[in-house]
Amino acid sequence: MEITKKVRFISRKVKTPFVLMDLDIVESNYRRLKDAIPGVKIFYAVKSNSHERVVNKLHDLGSSFDVASKGEIEKLLGLGIEPSMMSFGNTIKKEEDIKFAYENGIDLFAVDAEMEIEKISRNAPHSKVYFRLAMGETDSDWPLSKKFGTNIEHVKDLIIYAFKLGLRPIGVSFHVGSQCYDKYSWQVALMKVADIFWFARLQGIKMNVINLGGGMPIKYVRDIPTVEEIGEVINESIEEYFNFMDRPTLYVEPGRSMVGDAGILVSKVILRSKKDMTNWIYLDAGVFHGLMETIEDLRYKVVVEGKEEHQKKIFTLAGPTCDSVDVIYDEVELPEDISLNDTVYFLNAGAYTVDYGTNFNGIEKPKEIFMEDFSLEEQKEELFAAE
Amino acid sequence: MEITKKVRFISRKVKTPFVLMDLDIVESNYRRLKDAIPGVKIFYAVKSNSHERVVNKLHDLGSSFDVASKGEIEKLLGLGIEPSMMSFGNTIKKEEDIKFAYENGIDLFAVDAEMEIEKISRNAPHSKVYFRLAMGETDSDWPLSKKFGTNIEHVKDLIIYAFKLGLRPIGVSFHVGSQCYDKYSWQVALMKVADIFWFARLQGIKMNVINLGGGMPIKYVRDIPTVEEIGEVINESIEEYFNFMDRPTLYVEPGRSMVGDAGILVSKVILRSKKDMTNWIYLDAGVFHGLMETIEDLRYKVVVEGKEEHQKKIFTLAGPTCDSVDVIYDEVELPEDISLNDTVYFLNAGAYTVDYGTNFNGIEKPKEIFMEDFSLEEQKEELFAAE
Repeated sequence: MEITKKVRFISRKVKTPFVLMDLDIVESNYRRLKDAIPGVKIFYAVKSNSHERVVNKLHDLGSSFDVASKGEIEKLLGLGIEPSMMSFGNTIKKEEDIKFAYENGIDLFAVDAEMEIEKISRNAPHSKVYFRLAMGETDSDWPLSKKFGTNIEHVKDLIIYAFKLGLRPIGVSFHVGSQCYDKYSWQVALMKVADIFWFARLQGIKMNVINLGGGMPIKYVRDIPTVEEIGEVINESIEEYFNFMDRPTLYVEPGRSMVGDAGILVSKVILRSKKDMTNWIYLDAGVFHGLMETIEDLRYKVVVEGKEEHQKKIFTLAGPTCDSVDVIYDEVELPEDISLNDTVYFLNAGAYTVDYGTNFNGIEKPKEIFMEDFSLEEQKEELFAAE
Repeated sequence: MEITKKVRFISRKVKTPFVLMDLDIVESNYRRLKDAIPGVKIFYAVKSNSHERVVNKLHDLGSSFDVASKGEIEKLLGLGIEPSMMSFGNTIKKEEDIKFAYENGIDLFAVDAEMEIEKISRNAPHSKVYFRLAMGETDSDWPLSKKFGTNIEHVKDLIIYAFKLGLRPIGVSFHVGSQCYDKYSWQVALMKVADIFWFARLQGIKMNVINLGGGMPIKYVRDIPTVEEIGEVINESIEEYFNFMDRPTLYVEPGRSMVGDAGILVSKVILRSKKDMTNWIYLDAGVFHGLMETIEDLRYKVVVEGKEEHQKKIFTLAGPTCDSVDVIYDEVELPEDISLNDTVYFLNAGAYTVDYGTNFNGIEKPKEIFMEDFSLEEQKEELFAAE
């Protein structure tokens, strides 16, 4: 999402901090992914941006949903989304949440441990389950395999165990890591899935769902493979490794790649100071208010309104709370004349920003504002008034 | 706060996760600090635990309050707390928040930068200001001097600047770092404050308030100096370094030391698994739901109900969300037979837990529950029923 005239217009109109979302970009991301992997069923990862207008938009487009808790399920049911469109993809589910999901018609669950299978068989008998395979180290910003998924031999054991407990093993999921830069990670994963499917067939268990997980990257600073390039690797790998069976059904669980580049976090400078040799800029957004991922070293592109071309120098950039953890970047280049009330944009901030927000220090988390709520007419009026 | 029979009783009655608070301990902490430093005025740091019952309790005891934002001020005004009992101690204030504070009768502000002084002189003319002095490296868990405070020469410049802009310089604040283990840190700070006071007198500016900040430690795992020992160092330092003037007025801004040991976070095991060689325990509380400080390496004492004396082994302990950051401890000793639905206590979790909470993954942050709401009669009834 670019900083257009309309973005600048809205940034003057709305009280900061907020995340400005463009639902047209969400739509385009959805369609691009659909096109890149023929026949894929998209389960949007609600956790990445759970705003109801984002969810409604994706629902209108035909998306299904990956949910993480009872809270998310309740929210989606409240928006009129069918339980058949939901996959309970968290491998760490409260037992009462499984029961709630089942009683409300959800019959699709992720597992990576014996105890999880037992909990599901007790509370959601005969449900469909898919097994989360851990990947080795991949070139991604957040490898997810330590906490989630398990090794290939364990997955095979789990399939047999689930089958014995009366569940329906339908497939395998994996996750190459959030923000994955290596398109061949998907190929490696699919080779392993083919091995598992073949093993299961020998046991008389026909599985045909491959859940490709999320992990497709968006561009912050580093160059990324496109969704089309990743799709090509996936399609070729499916052709090559799964020729012993009918074409598998493909699921995908995008979060960041659906909404990340559809949002800009807009903040304002509330203080500039110099202490010892360090120049500090403090914003009205921070680690506890939208920018939590920066403490895990996510580098957003940062733009200061009207000073894009000014001479730069190094600043420490921090948030508004009385907390030493609330430092966004120890070192970042900003215009040397940045000052009080300047507007500061964080690009590609549509995912894992507002949903990570707290009310710490009595400061509310950023609101989400939608481009479509502002008409061209309003902008024209402003232009007219200015003349 | 010990795990008493009453704590165990409540943990069986209330849905986890929650933070169980004992307001009697808050009261005892307040009184101990009052006794340790004769004449000190306590400004409770609301951010550490902003629950209205905690605030009300401290209000009843006669405490004043250190506030960080308009949100906290509104909350306290709503609870009937006089503006004269509030100090706006955040050095990074939104201009509109300063205005709001001033219009509502608050006239006491912290500063550590020229621009902050300008903002206050514009929006809260003639207010009292105190200047935050940065400390060097101290032996504390969270040194707060990088983001807050400035060096001694800069403080002197700021005093002159504030005076010129019509503000009333009344004193100096410092913060030895959160969880400070070295009682002599306060002595070093007070020597510097005396230097500043002396300098100011030579300029004709009489300052007499020393804000001792927070930073008094509570015991998690490592041994700590007591509040009485710290008080003794402070009292002796005041006698020694401030004999050129009347005894200064002392403020203190405790957060963690008022409420930290008055709370226990109570959670339950929702999954146990083994993946490769690692044993995992997943809880219904985690980094995004009460235990944020663990990613900054705070080591809570962790106790598993009914298995305190069992053989221990090493586990990885994680929270309930689909997020790889949500790992509480990579390695922690737990009973080797820990299992589903076991109750897990985190001791001394009354500060910076619920207030750091998010609703990430559609999971609500822990609630706060109060010991005083459960009577001995209820416990007796349960005992009776069990017989």
